[in-house]
Amino acid sequence: MAQAPAFSFAPWMAAALARVEHALQDWVVAPQLAALAPDLPRAMRYAVLDGGKRLRPLLVLAAHEACAAQGGVSGPGAEAALRAACAVELIHAYSLVHDDMPCMDNDVLRRGKPTVHVEFGQATALLAGDALQALAFELLTPAGGGIDPVIQARLCAQLARSAGHGGMAGGQAIDLAHVGRSLKRAELQRMHELKTGALLQGSVVMGALCGAADAQAAAGLTAYGAAIGLAFQVVDDVLDVTADSATLGKTAGKDAYANKPTYVSTMGLKASQRYAQTLLSQAEKALRDSGLRETHALQALARMVVERAH
Amino acid sequence: MAQAPAFSFAPWMAAALARVEHALQDWVVAPQLAALAPDLPRAMRYAVLDGGKRLRPLLVLAAHEACAAQGGVSGPGAEAALRAACAVELIHAYSLVHDDMPCMDNDVLRRGKPTVHVEFGQATALLAGDALQALAFELLTPAGGGIDPVIQARLCAQLARSAGHGGMAGGQAIDLAHVGRSLKRAELQRMHELKTGALLQGSVVMGALCGAADAQAAAGLTAYGAAIGLAFQVVDDVLDVTADSATLGKTAGKDAYANKPTYVSTMGLKASQRYAQTLLSQAEKALRDSGLRETHALQALARMVVERAH
Repeated sequence: MAQAPAFSFAPWMAAALARVEHALQDWVVAPQLAALAPDLPRAMRYAVLDGGKRLRPLLVLAAHEACAAQGGVSGPGAEAALRAACAVELIHAYSLVHDDMPCMDNDVLRRGKPTVHVEFGQATALLAGDALQALAFELLTPAGGGIDPVIQARLCAQLARSAGHGGMAGGQAIDLAHVGRSLKRAELQRMHELKTGALLQGSVVMGALCGAADAQAAAGLTAYGAAIGLAFQVVDDVLDVTADSATLGKTAGKDAYANKPTYVSTMGLKASQRYAQTLLSQAEKALRDSGLRETHALQALARMVVERAH
Repeated sequence: MAQAPAFSFAPWMAAALARVEHALQDWVVAPQLAALAPDLPRAMRYAVLDGGKRLRPLLVLAAHEACAAQGGVSGPGAEAALRAACAVELIHAYSLVHDDMPCMDNDVLRRGKPTVHVEFGQATALLAGDALQALAFELLTPAGGGIDPVIQARLCAQLARSAGHGGMAGGQAIDLAHVGRSLKRAELQRMHELKTGALLQGSVVMGALCGAADAQAAAGLTAYGAAIGLAFQVVDDVLDVTADSATLGKTAGKDAYANKPTYVSTMGLKASQRYAQTLLSQAEKALRDSGLRETHALQALARMVVERAH
């Protein structure tokens, strides 16, 4: 009996990234504005293309593939997953554009480049963020029969909740309300569950939706998404004090400088590093509990989240 | 044979407005933020409640009712229409919050009250706008079986396209790109088709979707939506030079002051007023062409758009 070939993460990731980059190149366009308002599509593309780890899209694709492999499902789900992968990246990208604006974090450097408002002006940055959020929902609802409308509706439902007041935007509001103030550990956790965790978890859940996950798989992937969502933020806080700006591609030490509560300021550096490892273990356990067999990519992504250097 | 009672617009509008206001009161909430970030839900509610003509929601409800009356459809479509009515209002409200910000129009007065960034600060205004856009898509995709997922998907598709780069946000970008510059008549028209027209027309189309419009009705309502969408902006430009700030509830004369191209600056005042009447006639013809019988509310709304004093 021939054994299945061992999973190798690097080529999986290279192929997945190529699909995502290609799709974003194709889909983040606004040809009807080329003559009358070229700055808006240019700013949208500048915000999305040529940079970023694409962690959220990779989570969508990995979760979809794990579920599709289990159910023997293929075909239309892969198109839906690619659209969902790009949609979550657009939400992430728009949030960075708005976060970097002078009235928020006032950041001038992002992924080693001038931020969108520095390059295009604040008004265009504001509009580009708004248009990217809308475009995310456009990607999920293509005309024609390519994606089952029931899946379209469930993807829109999940994305809206991950992005809105009960997710990312709500977490940012908690962050904003506590600059220069202390947060209890539970409150800090809540902030990050919303601010970063909701969209990371939402990415996993949307991948599972596209792969027609059964209840056990969906529960396991939801728990996996929660663990890596938190781990991502803990590691972010650790890197803010241990890495330098060149490695991060953004301004290091800015949370400490802004007197923002972080895991490091709340728990200390060593305990934060241990907590990230604990969350990695929780993520791995959740994958085992999912009943899914083909979770190699999801495992590797969890390790990447915790062991990344930037 | 008993005749149907004559349609009376005032009570229809009062009842429709009461439903919309009640639903917005119920739906624009974020209880999980009450303790940790109360400013975000307060700013969201401030932006949406207690003000506004609710023209877009009224168009959704009127279009839905016209189609439902034709098809003998009732029940679930009315719930979908109320959700769509609120969703388009949230998109409108978020656009006003972002438009008023210092980096855009820098307006301090809206509906006779301080604008959101004046009341809550720019960062909260930015987030409130972002969260309102997401909430619009949440409203369209409720959990449970209340709305057919196929309708949910089509409503999300329409709203995203009306709001994004090919609609409202794209129109604002054209506006922004031409401050202090002239626009040809056709370009001005294109700007307004996107900036204001797309969401007004989208409101009518979303109402038709909820009412299961047939092809003839959908075509007629789409043309009606295009005509009143343009008429709205022409009248807006006329009022900017003929009304005072107290009547408008916002700063009068600001387009002229900002040297923005308008219908009045492009066509002159008299020709603009005549053009608004022409568009009203086109809207009325489109309703006749729709084959729908119960279009009294849509007719009255078209007149309201053209004959309004603010």
